[in-house]
Amino acid sequence: MPRIVMKFGGTSMAGIERIRNVASRVRREAEAEAGNEVLVVVSAMAGETDRLVQLCREAAALSDPKEYDVVVASGEQVTSGLLAMTLQNMGVKARSFMGWQLVRASGVHGNARVEAIESATLDEALKGGTVAVIPGFQGVSEDGRVATLGRGGSDTSAVAIAAGVKADRCDIYTDVDGVYTTDPRIVPNARKLNQVTFDEMLELAGVGAKVLQVRSVGLAMRENMPLRVLSAFEDKPGTDIVAELSGAEMERNLIAGIAADRNEARITLTGIADTPGTVAATISPIAEAGIQVDMIVHAATPNTGSSDLTFTVPRASLAQAISVIEQRKDAIGYSDLVQDPSVAKVSIVGVGIRSNPALAAKMFETLAERRINLLAVSTSEIKVSALIAEDELELAVRVLHTAFGLDDQSAAA
Amino acid sequence: MPRIVMKFGGTSMAGIERIRNVASRVRREAEAEAGNEVLVVVSAMAGETDRLVQLCREAAALSDPKEYDVVVASGEQVTSGLLAMTLQNMGVKARSFMGWQLVRASGVHGNARVEAIESATLDEALKGGTVAVIPGFQGVSEDGRVATLGRGGSDTSAVAIAAGVKADRCDIYTDVDGVYTTDPRIVPNARKLNQVTFDEMLELAGVGAKVLQVRSVGLAMRENMPLRVLSAFEDKPGTDIVAELSGAEMERNLIAGIAADRNEARITLTGIADTPGTVAATISPIAEAGIQVDMIVHAATPNTGSSDLTFTVPRASLAQAISVIEQRKDAIGYSDLVQDPSVAKVSIVGVGIRSNPALAAKMFETLAERRINLLAVSTSEIKVSALIAEDELELAVRVLHTAFGLDDQSAAA
Repeated sequence: MPRIVMKFGGTSMAGIERIRNVASRVRREAEAEAGNEVLVVVSAMAGETDRLVQLCREAAALSDPKEYDVVVASGEQVTSGLLAMTLQNMGVKARSFMGWQLVRASGVHGNARVEAIESATLDEALKGGTVAVIPGFQGVSEDGRVATLGRGGSDTSAVAIAAGVKADRCDIYTDVDGVYTTDPRIVPNARKLNQVTFDEMLELAGVGAKVLQVRSVGLAMRENMPLRVLSAFEDKPGTDIVAELSGAEMERNLIAGIAADRNEARITLTGIADTPGTVAATISPIAEAGIQVDMIVHAATPNTGSSDLTFTVPRASLAQAISVIEQRKDAIGYSDLVQDPSVAKVSIVGVGIRSNPALAAKMFETLAERRINLLAVSTSEIKVSALIAEDELELAVRVLHTAFGLDDQSAAA
Repeated sequence: MPRIVMKFGGTSMAGIERIRNVASRVRREAEAEAGNEVLVVVSAMAGETDRLVQLCREAAALSDPKEYDVVVASGEQVTSGLLAMTLQNMGVKARSFMGWQLVRASGVHGNARVEAIESATLDEALKGGTVAVIPGFQGVSEDGRVATLGRGGSDTSAVAIAAGVKADRCDIYTDVDGVYTTDPRIVPNARKLNQVTFDEMLELAGVGAKVLQVRSVGLAMRENMPLRVLSAFEDKPGTDIVAELSGAEMERNLIAGIAADRNEARITLTGIADTPGTVAATISPIAEAGIQVDMIVHAATPNTGSSDLTFTVPRASLAQAISVIEQRKDAIGYSDLVQDPSVAKVSIVGVGIRSNPALAAKMFETLAERRINLLAVSTSEIKVSALIAEDELELAVRVLHTAFGLDDQSAAA
C-alpha cells in the first residue's frame, strides 16, 4: 500500500478552522480508493514559534540549547494533538506521535538532524489504517532529551522523516501551488510545471524560485524521495519533483524554467599576472571570510602575460570582499579593481542542456537580439547563466521565457 | 543532604519577570548553607492551560483524552524550560526533566496519578548539585504516551513527586502566605499558624480554608510528607503541615482554628419509625445519587416509638435530595419533611480536642452566651461542628476565635 508523508507549514495550521481544512485534505488521502498509509508532519501555528523564541530571549540572552529546545518544541506538540483529535472527530483513525517517541536525532541541540525513525509502533499503527501525526522540527537526542532540527528546516525534517519511514512520496503543502517556469511577478503567463527534476529544482531554488528550502531538495535527491509541492488552500495539481522525468513529461520543453537573481555584485581585477596560483590567491581569502563567490570568469589573453579576473559575490558582501582584496593587493598583484553592484544573473535551467549545446547558443542569440550585453557567462550540466546589467533583467527573463516556449498559451488565449 | 521539592503555581509563573522571582527563591534554597537538593515542580503560565483546553474544545467537542493530554501538557513544558534557563542565567546549575522522562503515571488519561519516579538520572543530577525542574501535572502512561494528572491537581502532583523522590519536605508556594486560624475576611486579626497537623489541615481545608487541595493533604498524610505553605511573592515564614506538632508548637493553643462553611442545607424528617434500618433507608439513596451527606443527627425519643432525623447536604443539591426522599416516602415512612437552606456550619478544629472534652463544652457555652441556637452538632476526633442559622455565622466565628485565644494580639495592639 502506498505510504505518503504530507507536510503542512505554520500558515496552514494557524487556528482550528485551518486545521480542519488540513484534516479534510488528510482524510482525502487516507480514504483514497487505492488506500494509502498516511503520515502527517505539522509545523506550529504561524507566529507561535516566534513567541516561544521571544520568551527564551527574555529569560536569558544566551540560553542553553537543550532548554531552548524544550520550550520551542511545544508549538508542534500542540498542533499535532489538535490535528489528531480533529481527524478523529471527522471519523478518521488518527493518533499523534511525539518526536521523543520515534524520531532519533543527532548533532547539536537547536540544529539537530534526523538519524532514524523508531518504526515498529509506527508501522503497526499505519498498517492498522491509523493516520500518524508527527510534530515537525523535533526529535529525541542521543542523551534522551528533546532536540529541535534547526529553525525553518521543517521541509527538510519532513523529507528526513519520509526517508526514515520509507515513504513512497513526500507532499509539501504550502501557500504557493507549485513550481513555475519563472517568477510570475516578472512573467504573468509563467506556467506551472507538472514535473521538475531534483537538480533542476536545486538550480531553480538556488537562484531565486524560493518554493522549497534548498536543503530539503538536496536531501530528497540523496534519498531519492519524490516530492510534490502543492497548495494547502486550493484544489489544484501541484508539481512533482522527481529523479527523472517520466511519461508525457519526457516530451516537456528541454528547458524547465528561467531563473532570475538580483543578489549579485561584480568585481573585476585588471592586469593580474598570468602565473599559477593568482586566481586562488584572490578567491581563497574571500571564501575564508565566509563570502560566497558565485560566477568566476578568467581567461588569459594569449602572449600578454597578464589578464583580467571577474567574479561575483552577494551584493551585501561587496564592501567586505573589496576590503579583503585591497589588504592583499601586493600579494595578488593587479592594476585596477573595478566594482559594479548593479548586475543580475539570468539562467536557463533544464535537464535538456546536458545533451543539447545549441540551447546555450540560443540563449546568447536571444539576448543579443535585444542588445543585452553579457558581462560574464557560466555553465553547468543543466544550467547556463549570464551576468547582465540589473536594469535589463526583466526584459531578459521575458524574452528567454518566450524563446524557449515556456509561455502559458492557455492563459494568453 | 536535605532534599526539597518546591512547587509554584500558574500565577507565580505568569511571565518572565515572575519566573525570575521564582528563580531567585529557588537559588536561595539551592545555595542555602546546609546545602539542599532542590527539585522544582512548575505549573503552566496562568491562563495558558485554559487557552489550550479551549483549542481542544474547538477542535472536537469530545476529544480523545490521549490527544487532549498531548496538547494541554505543553504549557508546563514551556515554563519548565524557561525556569531552567533562567536559573542557569543566574549562575545556578539546573535542567528540566520532562514528565515522559521520569514520571510514570497510571490510570485514565486526563486524570492519571503518579505511580513512580524513574529516579536514576534524577538522583545523579541532584547529587551533582543540579536543580531539577519538572513540569507539574503530567507523566508518561503505561502505553508510553503523555498523560496529565487531572485538572487543578498540581499540588497533589507535587506531593506525589516529592514522595516519589523521597524528599524531606514539599514547599507549596502560593498567593496566600500560610494557613490562618480562620478566614481573615471574617476575622481581620486572624493569626497565621506556624504549624498545623495533617488532620487539622484536612478539617480546615474540607470546611472552607481553601489554601491547599484536600487531595494533596490526604496524600501527604499517607506518605508522611511534610508540607510547607508559603507566599511566592513575599518573604514571610509560611505554615508547616506536619504529622505531629513539635517544639514550641506543642504549647500552641489546643484549637488550631475556626472553620466556617456556608455550603449547607438542612433537611429534617419528623415522625420516622424507631425501627432498625430507617436511617439507612433514608441516607443511602441520597448518597447513591452522588449527593454528599454531611451532618447526621438522630436520637430516638424514648418510649414514643418515633423520632426525628436531621441531616445536611450541599446547598446546590437540596432540591435533588428532597426529590430522592419524596420518591421513597412510603418506604421510609415519615410525617413531614422540613427543609432549611439558610444554615451554616461553624467548627473548632484542633488536635487538643482529642484529649480535652471540655473544649466542646466551652464552644457550646460561648455560642449560648450570644444566644446562637444550635440546630445540630457533630463531633469527630479533632473537630466539633455546630449547625447554626446562616446569618449568625460571622458572629459565631468571631466569638469562638476570641474565646479560644486565637486573636492576633500583636495586630490588635
